[in-house]
Amino acid sequence: MSVFTKQEYMERVKKTKQSMQEKGMDLLIISHPANMNYLTGYDGWSFYVHQCLVISLEEEQPLWIGRGMDANGARITSYLDDEHIFEYADDYVQSLVKHPMHFVAGLIKERRWGSKTIGVEMDQFYFTHRSYVELEKSLPNASFVDANALVNWIRVVKSDQEIEMMKRAGQIAVKVMDAAKNSIKPGVRECDAAARIVQAQYAGTEQYGGDYPAIVPLIMAGEATKTPHLTWSDTPFVKDEAVLLELSGVYKHYHAPIARTIFLGENPPKLMQETADIVTEGLQATLDWIRPGVTAEEVEAKWREAISHSTIVKESRLGYSIGVNYPPDWGEHTISFRPGDKTILVPNMAIHLIPGIWYENVGFEIDASIYMTDDGYEPLYDYPIDMMLVKE
Amino acid sequence: MSVFTKQEYMERVKKTKQSMQEKGMDLLIISHPANMNYLTGYDGWSFYVHQCLVISLEEEQPLWIGRGMDANGARITSYLDDEHIFEYADDYVQSLVKHPMHFVAGLIKERRWGSKTIGVEMDQFYFTHRSYVELEKSLPNASFVDANALVNWIRVVKSDQEIEMMKRAGQIAVKVMDAAKNSIKPGVRECDAAARIVQAQYAGTEQYGGDYPAIVPLIMAGEATKTPHLTWSDTPFVKDEAVLLELSGVYKHYHAPIARTIFLGENPPKLMQETADIVTEGLQATLDWIRPGVTAEEVEAKWREAISHSTIVKESRLGYSIGVNYPPDWGEHTISFRPGDKTILVPNMAIHLIPGIWYENVGFEIDASIYMTDDGYEPLYDYPIDMMLVKE
Repeated sequence: MSVFTKQEYMERVKKTKQSMQEKGMDLLIISHPANMNYLTGYDGWSFYVHQCLVISLEEEQPLWIGRGMDANGARITSYLDDEHIFEYADDYVQSLVKHPMHFVAGLIKERRWGSKTIGVEMDQFYFTHRSYVELEKSLPNASFVDANALVNWIRVVKSDQEIEMMKRAGQIAVKVMDAAKNSIKPGVRECDAAARIVQAQYAGTEQYGGDYPAIVPLIMAGEATKTPHLTWSDTPFVKDEAVLLELSGVYKHYHAPIARTIFLGENPPKLMQETADIVTEGLQATLDWIRPGVTAEEVEAKWREAISHSTIVKESRLGYSIGVNYPPDWGEHTISFRPGDKTILVPNMAIHLIPGIWYENVGFEIDASIYMTDDGYEPLYDYPIDMMLVKE
Repeated sequence: MSVFTKQEYMERVKKTKQSMQEKGMDLLIISHPANMNYLTGYDGWSFYVHQCLVISLEEEQPLWIGRGMDANGARITSYLDDEHIFEYADDYVQSLVKHPMHFVAGLIKERRWGSKTIGVEMDQFYFTHRSYVELEKSLPNASFVDANALVNWIRVVKSDQEIEMMKRAGQIAVKVMDAAKNSIKPGVRECDAAARIVQAQYAGTEQYGGDYPAIVPLIMAGEATKTPHLTWSDTPFVKDEAVLLELSGVYKHYHAPIARTIFLGENPPKLMQETADIVTEGLQATLDWIRPGVTAEEVEAKWREAISHSTIVKESRLGYSIGVNYPPDWGEHTISFRPGDKTILVPNMAIHLIPGIWYENVGFEIDASIYMTDDGYEPLYDYPIDMMLVKE
């Protein structure tokens, strides 16, 4: 029941092993849910307990290690053979005495890998400090090295099959933003609009059912437009307020984020209209220029140049790489469009450019989700890049 | 705009400081989103970057430390004064060089707390291994001790205001399960049922708007009923299959989980009916017996005794404590109903008992979300405890 062919997963594992070899690792422990999914197809909401893959240069398939009750989930959703699925007993869960990493270490020792060089994802959520401590205590002869974002960097260039997933997510994104536009009105409670939006996210299109996004709908109205990561309340929208929306279409955990700004009236304040015009033109100028071969920091510089005639200063990064992901973030934690990021863009990278402005006196959001092609880029969806005016 | 009064937050901080003193901590660093919300009201989907509270015995209010763009979110949603909100620059985000914990350590040193005993949540997601390493490097004179679940254990006994939030979540839970019952039918795609369910979660009731649950709808149909944590696909439900549902009503991040089993036909297989009868009677017998003064392990023993006449063996814990939470888990990570947990139940503890059965040949789920009263318990919602038969 995996989403991709076994060959595609094996290819991903092979690339991971190449990267391990380059970095001098014998073993790799992966606990990031998107990386687990990417390498095996495993797909369950079980990442609230400790679980991981162990990838060895000596073994073709990764080992999946998780809680007993989730092992059947691994059997159903991953391509792994049964002898590569290992389950720990339930008394390891949130215990003060036992820790799931003792079980992981036991499997590693059994296979005589206890003196190896082991990569772990040191700055990923889902790999806690105590996971490290317990592994280190249980494997005193192992050497641990940081493998943070190792698999994320392999994910950064998508296969054509993955791009197809993202395009389907893009079709869903259009329906999601339409649902927002059609439900956000003065007098409607924020929670009721959120409900319509998320319904569109999960339902997807007739052909492609939707999935849960790694970030719930972000809906900032009125005072909240000066910050980007609030969700919703049960108070109604009011006339002549702005509403910032950061949403996504999702297909099989692949994301096509879409951010727009609605003004609930006919005449947005002058400052808001000016901000919208500058940001929208700046984004368009950046898109007109972006192409394979340029670096992430050059893209950001292009954007900065395009708005340099204005008083707008955007201190936060312009965007980041996207693809398959799980809560809490659809960002890939690889490329960041900001000074210092010298990643060269190549075909089949997928990126989210979101020049959001969250000032005390004005907020505005617009975005583009695109992927690089041989000679330019393609958008993941086609949706007008402008401020939307919604009348009563 | 905080949900509770400033006094209630101050009372929670006071209890936290008492616990810190008992454990010999001068400072406490809290990165668990539910704990941050519990202590200050802060409520944003910003936990995908590093952020934390720092609580000092010397200072009345906690310090909130987060990404620049999220500081206005803290100003809007928390009770904290502006001088207790600190923002780090955007180039700390997912950088290979800078780490947000350098900024946190800088603030700690500025306040001459660099030689203190500091509690950190060592086994919480959102506190990574690298967070610990960078803190330790930056604060060479500090002593670090484990404060895992310290605040969770303060959360375990709810205030009356919190119980009121959970009852509102309970009202929403009824609407959520009704949405499931009314939408799950042969021929309907799983994703379309998920969409109706989540719509009910976010919309809530007319009086109380809903919130996002810490776990998305878990919907296991057909083969998937042998495991508990899968989500949904875009294939349609088929006649005469079982569907396991673990859902929740949520109000202001307070949860009232609700799990039920649907059979899509008139005649469930004999094994399924027998399992349903035994589990349902076992849960009812446990509920008839549960009261303040008993321990968590005694509750589980009561359940085990009640089903001992059958062949059913449930190896996983019977349930756990619930309350305010954020993804990835609505479990509080405190009380577990299983052998060895000697926590004594007291009034205003809230718990989720979920005797789920996920065998190769039969799956069944039913639950109760309740809170303890002075002389027994009250359910958070009133919903028939039985298998639901849905005909076409």
